[in-house]
Amino acid sequence: MKFWNSKLKNSTEYIPGEQPGDVDTYIKLNTNENPFPPSKAVLDALRNSCNESLRRYPDPEAKDLRSAFAAKNGLKAENVFVGNGSDEIFSLIFRGFIEGTQTAAFPYPSYSLYNTLAEFNGIKYETVNLGKNFEYNMDGFLKKKYSLAVIANPNNPTGTLCGIKDIKSFLGKFKGLLVIDEAYNEFYGDTALDLVEDFDNLIVTRSFSKSYSLAGLRIGLAVACSDIIKGFLKIKDSYNIDRLALAGALAALNDTKGFNYNIQMLRNNKEYMEEMLQALGFTVVPSRANFVLVKHGKKKALELYESLKEKKILVRYFTSPAVSDYIRISVGTMMEIKTLVKELSVILEA
Amino acid sequence: MKFWNSKLKNSTEYIPGEQPGDVDTYIKLNTNENPFPPSKAVLDALRNSCNESLRRYPDPEAKDLRSAFAAKNGLKAENVFVGNGSDEIFSLIFRGFIEGTQTAAFPYPSYSLYNTLAEFNGIKYETVNLGKNFEYNMDGFLKKKYSLAVIANPNNPTGTLCGIKDIKSFLGKFKGLLVIDEAYNEFYGDTALDLVEDFDNLIVTRSFSKSYSLAGLRIGLAVACSDIIKGFLKIKDSYNIDRLALAGALAALNDTKGFNYNIQMLRNNKEYMEEMLQALGFTVVPSRANFVLVKHGKKKALELYESLKEKKILVRYFTSPAVSDYIRISVGTMMEIKTLVKELSVILEA
Repeated sequence: MKFWNSKLKNSTEYIPGEQPGDVDTYIKLNTNENPFPPSKAVLDALRNSCNESLRRYPDPEAKDLRSAFAAKNGLKAENVFVGNGSDEIFSLIFRGFIEGTQTAAFPYPSYSLYNTLAEFNGIKYETVNLGKNFEYNMDGFLKKKYSLAVIANPNNPTGTLCGIKDIKSFLGKFKGLLVIDEAYNEFYGDTALDLVEDFDNLIVTRSFSKSYSLAGLRIGLAVACSDIIKGFLKIKDSYNIDRLALAGALAALNDTKGFNYNIQMLRNNKEYMEEMLQALGFTVVPSRANFVLVKHGKKKALELYESLKEKKILVRYFTSPAVSDYIRISVGTMMEIKTLVKELSVILEA
Repeated sequence: MKFWNSKLKNSTEYIPGEQPGDVDTYIKLNTNENPFPPSKAVLDALRNSCNESLRRYPDPEAKDLRSAFAAKNGLKAENVFVGNGSDEIFSLIFRGFIEGTQTAAFPYPSYSLYNTLAEFNGIKYETVNLGKNFEYNMDGFLKKKYSLAVIANPNNPTGTLCGIKDIKSFLGKFKGLLVIDEAYNEFYGDTALDLVEDFDNLIVTRSFSKSYSLAGLRIGLAVACSDIIKGFLKIKDSYNIDRLALAGALAALNDTKGFNYNIQMLRNNKEYMEEMLQALGFTVVPSRANFVLVKHGKKKALELYESLKEKKILVRYFTSPAVSDYIRISVGTMMEIKTLVKELSVILEA
C-alpha cells in the first residue's frame, strides 16, 4: 500500500454480491437483477447503435436521455442528471456536496455502499436505526444537524418503505441535503420525484439496473433542482456514459408496454415466492422491492446460504448484526422460484 | 451553489471539445477521434452481446479484458486495471494515490484535465514548462519533492514525445508516483509498459478511444504493480464498466489485423495532412499522435478556428497562452483532409 493515500488505506471496501464466472450454472438470486431479459425494443435499439458512430465520443451531457426522462415525469431536463449507474451518482454526491467538516447520516441496516463512500471521502457519518420491523424512523435524522442524509426507498436489504407523506413532512424540518435512492422504486411506485420542485435540498436517484433489466449497461439518474444538477455536470468525467448505454436507456424509457409487462410479471412472481416461503415457515419482511428478506426458526441464515450455494442457488447473506439472521432472496423466474422452494424444503427437513 | 462543497465551488471546470448535436453536418477534427470506424469484428461482437445477459451486472473485475491485455503485452492480469475511459482512471488516481498535504506536477502545456482533477480533490499542483519546441524537460519534475507527476506521452496538445530512455533515467531518480498517459501511444509505439515490472511507482494508462476507434464506448486501462492495481479495484465503483464496453474492447484487442490496418491508414493520412499544411505555409509541430498542432504567420489561431467553424469544420483552439497561437487538428479521412486544405487555402488568401 506504498502509494495508497490515507483514505484508501483506512476505508472498508464495499463487497458486491458474488458474480461467479460460470454464472449460467447457478440460479442467481443474490444481486437483485431482474429475472426477465430487456425488452425486444431495447435489444433492437442497441444492435442498431453498434455502428460506426462508436468511433465518436458520446454526448457529454446526455441531453436526449435527460429530456426523455424529464418529459415522461413532468420535469425539465435541467432537473435530470445521468450517471454510470447510480453508484457513480452516489460517489459524486460524496465528492461534491459534502465536506470533511460535516456529518452524514444513513439508516441501519441499509445499503452499506453509503458508508464506504463516506469513508473514501473522509466524511464522518452516523447511522439511524430502523425500527423493530425495519420501519423507517425519520425523526432519527433530525436528532443532530446532519448535512447529508441518504435513504434507500424502498430500503435495501429490508424492502421496507418510507411513505411520501413522511418524507414531505421530514423535508419541512430537515436543513441538510436529503438523497432518496429509488433504485427499487418502479416495482411498486410511490415516488418522491415530484417533491424536487418544492425542495432544493432533495436528490432522488433512479436506476435502470432493476426495473429495466439493464444492470449490464450501467445507467442511473439523479433528479434535483437545477443548481445541484449543474454541480453534478461540473464534477463528473466528461464522457461518463457510453453511446450504447445512452441508446439502450432511451429505448427502455420509450418502451412503456415492455416495461409494464416486466413489472407485472415480477409482481406476480414475488407474490408467489412470498406465499411459498411463508408456507415453508419463513418469516417474510413485507417488501416493496424485487427481493425479500426472510428468516427461519429452524435454520441459521448462514447455513441456509451455504446449503443453497451447494445446490447452485445463490442468495445474499449479510454479516451485519441487524440482518445476520436473514437471507435476502431476489425474485426469480417461476422456474427458479420453484427450484428454490424445492431445495429449501429439502434443506429444512435435513 | 447552496449545496456545493468548497472544492466544487472553487475549482475550474474541464471543458471538452465541442460535440455538436448536428455532428454529421461537420467535419469534426477537434477531439482526436479516429476517422475510421471500429472494425467489423468489433461491431459484430458488440451486436452479438446485445442479448438477455444485459439484465445481469457486468464482471466487476473485468477479468477477461485484463487477462487479454496482459497476455498480449507480456504482463499479468494483476498488473492491469480497466476504467470507464482513462478519465475515470485519472480521477481515481487523484482520489486514491495522493492527499491534500502533497504536491503534484504536470507539464505545461498539456492535458488540462490533470489540473482540474487536482483542484476537485484539493491537491496542490505545479506545472513544469515544456521547452521552446514543446520538448519534455523531465529534470523539471525533480526540482522539488513532487508526490505525483502526470505526463501525457505523446503529449496533448503538442504531439511531442518523451523517449523511453529519458523516462527510465527519470524513474531512477524520482521517488513519487509517475503516471504516463499513453492515450495516443499506439499510433507510433515506444511504450513505457515494460517499465512497470521494474518500477513500483509507475502507472501507464491506455485508451481505446483513439487507436481502436471506440471513443463512444469509454474504455481505458491502467498498468502498474499489483499493489497499485489493488488500490484501483478497492476504490472504483463496483460495476464501473458495462458489458458491451467490455465485449467491444475484448474484440478490439483480438482483432490485430483490423487494428494494424487502421493505424497504417491513420499514419498515411497524417503524413499527407502534414505535407499539405506545410505547403500552405503552416508551421507543424512534429507529432507522434493522431493530431497536429499548427500555426500560421498570416492568420491568428482564433481567426482560423472561427473561419473553419463557419465552413463547418471543427478544429481545437486553446486560450492557454503557451498554445494560443496554434490550432490543433485531428487527422481525418482523406476526403476530410482535402476539404480542410481547400478551405484553409481560401481562408489564407482572404
